[in-house]
Amino acid sequence: MSTPTLSSTTPADAAPARPDQPLLPMAILGTGEALPRRVVTTAEVAARCGLPADEAEQRSGVLTRHWISPDEDPLDLGVAAARSALADAGLTIADIDCVLNASGTPMQAIPDGGALLAAELGMAPTKSAYSVHGTCLSFLFALREAALLIAHGSARHVLIVSTEAGSRGLNFAQPESALLIGDAAAAVVVGPAQRPGQGLVRSSFITVTSGVEDARIRGFGTRIPIEEASERLTDFKFDMQGIRLLASAIRAFPKFLEDFEPGLSSGLGDTIAAGIPLTLHRARIQPGERLLLVGSGAGTHFGALLVQN
Amino acid sequence: MSTPTLSSTTPADAAPARPDQPLLPMAILGTGEALPRRVVTTAEVAARCGLPADEAEQRSGVLTRHWISPDEDPLDLGVAAARSALADAGLTIADIDCVLNASGTPMQAIPDGGALLAAELGMAPTKSAYSVHGTCLSFLFALREAALLIAHGSARHVLIVSTEAGSRGLNFAQPESALLIGDAAAAVVVGPAQRPGQGLVRSSFITVTSGVEDARIRGFGTRIPIEEASERLTDFKFDMQGIRLLASAIRAFPKFLEDFEPGLSSGLGDTIAAGIPLTLHRARIQPGERLLLVGSGAGTHFGALLVQN
Repeated sequence: MSTPTLSSTTPADAAPARPDQPLLPMAILGTGEALPRRVVTTAEVAARCGLPADEAEQRSGVLTRHWISPDEDPLDLGVAAARSALADAGLTIADIDCVLNASGTPMQAIPDGGALLAAELGMAPTKSAYSVHGTCLSFLFALREAALLIAHGSARHVLIVSTEAGSRGLNFAQPESALLIGDAAAAVVVGPAQRPGQGLVRSSFITVTSGVEDARIRGFGTRIPIEEASERLTDFKFDMQGIRLLASAIRAFPKFLEDFEPGLSSGLGDTIAAGIPLTLHRARIQPGERLLLVGSGAGTHFGALLVQN
Repeated sequence: MSTPTLSSTTPADAAPARPDQPLLPMAILGTGEALPRRVVTTAEVAARCGLPADEAEQRSGVLTRHWISPDEDPLDLGVAAARSALADAGLTIADIDCVLNASGTPMQAIPDGGALLAAELGMAPTKSAYSVHGTCLSFLFALREAALLIAHGSARHVLIVSTEAGSRGLNFAQPESALLIGDAAAAVVVGPAQRPGQGLVRSSFITVTSGVEDARIRGFGTRIPIEEASERLTDFKFDMQGIRLLASAIRAFPKFLEDFEPGLSSGLGDTIAAGIPLTLHRARIQPGERLLLVGSGAGTHFGALLVQN
């Protein structure tokens, strides 16, 4: 076990939440991805939405995305991404102490995706698995979680898996969201720091609750009886209020970023829906690099992690 | 579905904490609950299952439970429990840095329940909210999470809310699960330790993946298209293999408990559906007591937390 860095003896009675967070030593040891086999062009989605292809390409800025086929299972995608990340780390599932499912779209109600992934990966019954859910920001919440578990000594190696099949919840009457969503799985293996100073330097999350109705799927839970699904199908589809979402992000995001790190709000690229671990996989990060992982989820969650590699 | 026990002893009676997990200083500052107004007798459930009332009472060991009515919303129940816990702690939502939704049954797909609860409670947009999901064990995962966040300085006060409306997913063709489930919400406020030695002494979680098919709801996610809900309604209902679940628990639970604390496997209490924070609320814990929170979830997750109050 790595040296625990979480405070162990001092009662914090009079102490406020520390503005300067202690480093959580950890390392990103491996990454992996898996994509559904079917590639869908924006022209094809546009046709289903009743839009001209060129207008759709311009509006979305996307030419192709992957969508899961009826015979494909998001669980299998997640498992493939996890195996690829384990191989990249030079580890096997036997080395993993905790599997964290960090998917914005749930695979099923019970058991949670963590247990499902662990079962398919053949995890030993002395290890644990569960799920962390903060919509599209689930991976960032899970990465902080992994760092906390490792720092505390509750885990040495954590496997984080995000597997998304949002295409199964698209509403083609709403082109702005239907054009946006692609399916993918990505996984990251996190373990003990290998160098002094390596780890999660700082993290910040805010939840702007004024946005809870701007991007939502109202169904798939206890609030709408499943018996009403056929007559309320739209409530089981992704509903995005694009303009409100954009206005909210413009209001909240720059201030959030400036608070996290002055100067950060200028020069930021686009935010990708379920793409943070995928981007991390494709970025081929190098030792000594400092990574800033930033995202937003469902117009509500905003998060930033500063990681020293 | 879960098997919570809450036992307390004085610190002098208890085994010392293992050296590999540092104490996470924290205190349970307040608890609260909210129940749906409708009380359902076992005789009534038995009639819907086609069973004699006395046999059902004997099989379930339960005489009444609460079920949510069509005009009630599990979100409102969660909010009521949260307000009650905040009042008990002498705090308001303005004091809370993080709201953790720890419900085994999701309220809706997106945004997650953490954001929904925070919105209804009027949480400021400088704070955060998300969800931790490990079926019936979600509360224990969330309590460890709260302790980690407080120890790290990421939060000073954390509000954990479990709100369950499992009655909306019951399958009356399966009496053993239909007789088991009740609806309730419960909430706990966690904050900084107020005395030296107070906090989360030790925690352990295992996920026994051989049980992932013993207690499940296959629907409500990306694995089964919602368009198929009406013709596959049973897949959207709770499916419990009672005998397999019991056999798995008998195999895994005593060893898990003995590993956590020798001598613990004897004297386990009854099975309560979503009851750990509810039990915590009703137990009226006293300063200096040592609490053992133990549970299992969906025949898969097993967890134990030792808390020094």
